[in-house]
Amino acid sequence: MSFTPPTADQILAIKVSAGIDDIAQAERFAAATPDMVEAIVEGIGAFAAGEWAPLHRAGDQIGAKWKDGVVTMPPGYVAAYKDFVAQGWGSIAGPQAFGGQGLPFTLATAVMETLGAANMGFTLLPILTVGAIEAIDHHGSDAQKALYLPKLISGEWSGTMNLTEPQAGSDVGALRTTATPIVDGPHAGKYRIAGTKIYITFGEHDGAENIIHLVLARTPGAPEGSRGISLFVVPKFHLDADGNPGERNDVQCVSIEHKLGIHASPTCVMSYGDNAECIGEMIGHENGGLRAMFTMMNSARINVGSQGVQIAERALQQASAYARDRIQSARAGSPDKTPVSIVEHPDVRRMLMRMRALTEGSRALLYYTAGQVDRGTLGDGAAQMRAELLVPMLKAWGTDIGCEVASLGIQVHGGMGFVEETGAAQHYRDARIAPIYEGTNGIQAADLVTRKLGYENGGVLQALMAQIASEMEDVPEVAALAKDAAAIGQWMSTTASLDDKLAGSVPFTTMCAVAVAGWQLGRQSRASGLHAKTAVTKFFNRVIVPEARGLGSSAMSGAALLYDLDTDALVG
Amino acid sequence: MSFTPPTADQILAIKVSAGIDDIAQAERFAAATPDMVEAIVEGIGAFAAGEWAPLHRAGDQIGAKWKDGVVTMPPGYVAAYKDFVAQGWGSIAGPQAFGGQGLPFTLATAVMETLGAANMGFTLLPILTVGAIEAIDHHGSDAQKALYLPKLISGEWSGTMNLTEPQAGSDVGALRTTATPIVDGPHAGKYRIAGTKIYITFGEHDGAENIIHLVLARTPGAPEGSRGISLFVVPKFHLDADGNPGERNDVQCVSIEHKLGIHASPTCVMSYGDNAECIGEMIGHENGGLRAMFTMMNSARINVGSQGVQIAERALQQASAYARDRIQSARAGSPDKTPVSIVEHPDVRRMLMRMRALTEGSRALLYYTAGQVDRGTLGDGAAQMRAELLVPMLKAWGTDIGCEVASLGIQVHGGMGFVEETGAAQHYRDARIAPIYEGTNGIQAADLVTRKLGYENGGVLQALMAQIASEMEDVPEVAALAKDAAAIGQWMSTTASLDDKLAGSVPFTTMCAVAVAGWQLGRQSRASGLHAKTAVTKFFNRVIVPEARGLGSSAMSGAALLYDLDTDALVG
Repeated sequence: MSFTPPTADQILAIKVSAGIDDIAQAERFAAATPDMVEAIVEGIGAFAAGEWAPLHRAGDQIGAKWKDGVVTMPPGYVAAYKDFVAQGWGSIAGPQAFGGQGLPFTLATAVMETLGAANMGFTLLPILTVGAIEAIDHHGSDAQKALYLPKLISGEWSGTMNLTEPQAGSDVGALRTTATPIVDGPHAGKYRIAGTKIYITFGEHDGAENIIHLVLARTPGAPEGSRGISLFVVPKFHLDADGNPGERNDVQCVSIEHKLGIHASPTCVMSYGDNAECIGEMIGHENGGLRAMFTMMNSARINVGSQGVQIAERALQQASAYARDRIQSARAGSPDKTPVSIVEHPDVRRMLMRMRALTEGSRALLYYTAGQVDRGTLGDGAAQMRAELLVPMLKAWGTDIGCEVASLGIQVHGGMGFVEETGAAQHYRDARIAPIYEGTNGIQAADLVTRKLGYENGGVLQALMAQIASEMEDVPEVAALAKDAAAIGQWMSTTASLDDKLAGSVPFTTMCAVAVAGWQLGRQSRASGLHAKTAVTKFFNRVIVPEARGLGSSAMSGAALLYDLDTDALVG
Repeated sequence: MSFTPPTADQILAIKVSAGIDDIAQAERFAAATPDMVEAIVEGIGAFAAGEWAPLHRAGDQIGAKWKDGVVTMPPGYVAAYKDFVAQGWGSIAGPQAFGGQGLPFTLATAVMETLGAANMGFTLLPILTVGAIEAIDHHGSDAQKALYLPKLISGEWSGTMNLTEPQAGSDVGALRTTATPIVDGPHAGKYRIAGTKIYITFGEHDGAENIIHLVLARTPGAPEGSRGISLFVVPKFHLDADGNPGERNDVQCVSIEHKLGIHASPTCVMSYGDNAECIGEMIGHENGGLRAMFTMMNSARINVGSQGVQIAERALQQASAYARDRIQSARAGSPDKTPVSIVEHPDVRRMLMRMRALTEGSRALLYYTAGQVDRGTLGDGAAQMRAELLVPMLKAWGTDIGCEVASLGIQVHGGMGFVEETGAAQHYRDARIAPIYEGTNGIQAADLVTRKLGYENGGVLQALMAQIASEMEDVPEVAALAKDAAAIGQWMSTTASLDDKLAGSVPFTTMCAVAVAGWQLGRQSRASGLHAKTAVTKFFNRVIVPEARGLGSSAMSGAALLYDLDTDALVG
């Protein structure tokens, strides 16, 4: 199945929802001219369609392979990754001091969206590297930055994030990996790392010259829980005096998971210090590891929310092509009994419109969020807080719609959709990880109602919903949804218990996300005057928005409804 | 993952929603005493849990294998199928004249539900056989009945349904398989069948002594489209003079599909008449094939709707066990910092309550429908029409919630859910076929709004919704939903164009199904007084029912919304 990058819609979203021209007013981002925006979006589109998309099926069917600690990417992946490095696509938003282009995050978002739509599993490799760059850039010493950032930014080296352990999933504070200070010898001042980490994406592979693991671990005597965690950088190969990969560090990939999807991406079990010789350096302050990880989380969560958009785009393209080419049955009620393309049948058309509305709506939310991040970077505190409010909405709803659109994509194909050769099923399998990793969608919703809703005593959410209700006065569905969300937010900020908030958190998150998406689609529709955008927006308003309003009862139903049935009766 | 048959909830649904005691008042079904109901539900539960459930994983991981036209079921399946035959589970509702037990369809429904929850893919084998039994019983000659029914009812032989061809999916009328009358020789009066059929479930396998294919084909000069189709019985092995399997007929399984799920069930491409020697007999009248197939459809569609309930039950059990055993994080806001079972966390609990509400709600709809079928069999014309109205609701919504519950089951598992060894992913993959086969859910919704809604000029639907609204006066959510559905039904019956009806058909079908499910849960709750049922019902009313009301805008949004974007703009 070929892939056509959604260039025009991305540029529209970058202009209207991210507001790139406004962002480019700042000297720091002055390079983000309209020409540059087009060059990047079109350039990455051509690269992704030409080099990464053709590898998508093999990634699924062959997948990454583990043998004796060595992980081999599927055929063609190493060469395609080296081309990505050579063309500099990993360096868009990286700091200029270390070889990055220093462009807005919005444009890096476009690069990741396009690569991921071409090949979701593969794109986890640069996504993870971006996380490592951010952690080192924000928390590393000057020496560490100089050592690691240039090669990570170029992509010659890749990065990983090591949080999870078997007993420490959503509860990162339960981790047990240890970091023991080294007092003497050549590694004095560094740490000996020991422990096992699971679910480490691209923890081992053959595409980069070195792999820079960022590892959360505990120093001796550290406080229990999440306040006793420090962050360490653990290179696969130690760096020699010239900063080049030298001897192998004591870190091994002991196995990879057999997963439902994203088979191109090796999900590794990593063992640190089997021979007590795993050496790492601390990044930032002792016990400051979780805060350092949080630095990486905003962009990582945005990139995962974007994966929902990506899978949706890909599934939509595939279903659209099928619906156009598949001829079956005459139009119901038509005197002409000639069979037609199934896209002409109302319910198939409804599914495609729904797929498109969800895809474009989530993309609008994605770029609105990215734009707020860039404004925050430029010192706009309100935008920074709004960005943080938006991140859980985007991550949760974006990944939910990714699954829904992929499922609709199968349905459009009928029986063919269930046959693996068609490729529609791969989207459905790949999409399913995104609501889970990088903080489950339940964790996102909890973040929204317990942390982000607290910003300015609920004021940050209220301001957003008030702006939506006011700008969308002429779109009663969206205005009503924003008012519903504001009212529920108000209840959560004042009356609701913590349990009540958590009980309603997921439906509330969806309502907020849909309100923002509807708003941004409306803005894009007005700004562009494009008939296609207006039609899709109208569908979104008439179908998707009222459904989100239907979640209001659930969002406010409170915890008592959940605990009425006691635990034994519920789960035996 | 072990399987516990949901015996108590099935018996409650059989009593309250099917109304078995009422049905057993009729002499024909007098054997369906409370003792018999319990014996069947508990007996099939023990059999399914003991013999079919343990084969569930191997069915997925090994699957059915094709080699040189021979299809081998996964290890253990043949023996387990023979035990099913030996214990007589296939004969529950079969006609007594041919060895069946003549019990109500409701009890056969319980048998299929339990078997399918234990092993969905495997259970397609008896489901298809039931379809063949019904077609031959209703449309075959006395000689055909005598030849085929006893062995099909016992299960020693299995049945298939052959409709689909590459160019004839939802549009059965486009099929091209031919049936040429044989004038002379030993097969005079029979037909030579030639053509290729696809998606033939258990078209070939090693579990039965003979396979009785029911094949739709065209006789020479037959009218075009669906009015020119006849039904033929084509045994894999010709029957000898004693009615035993003899020489091989000219029908071959040329390949099986590589599918997303239900790997235990071979999905066959069947080739009839490669050597021009495929012999079949006509069932019923020439050109009456589609009507004969419709006979089989009600029960087949009920059994497929049931598959949603089955997967939901299985996914719920697996997620419940995981949520009980997995310890992670202290309760938010609790002074006690000890980690707890994740079921104690509000959002995990919400997911499990949702899974349970959808599972029990769809089961309530299943048995209400089955009970109406039995009443129809007893001559109650209103119940017969109501059953036909309910079938598309059950098939569509039942299979939709199967997918949703399986997806939630993965989410409850977190990262583990995405790892195939856990087994949660199998449910998600298996579930996805059910909205597609046996008439896609779009076809179900079209059947509801174009055919069933027309019964008594909309009166059958209006009567159902009026009854719900009236009996549920004290449950405002359900009453309101029934009134919404009645109003939309009224609009569809009067003002709406055919396109408008079709455009809103899927959300309307969901609304109707949820209204019936909420009603039946309410009846079960009142009748049983069980706290668990009351709590689940309350959740259903507060969460699921308002969401269904949120579909009203979509159901009434009309076709113009879908065709505003022209075809080229929509699908390029």
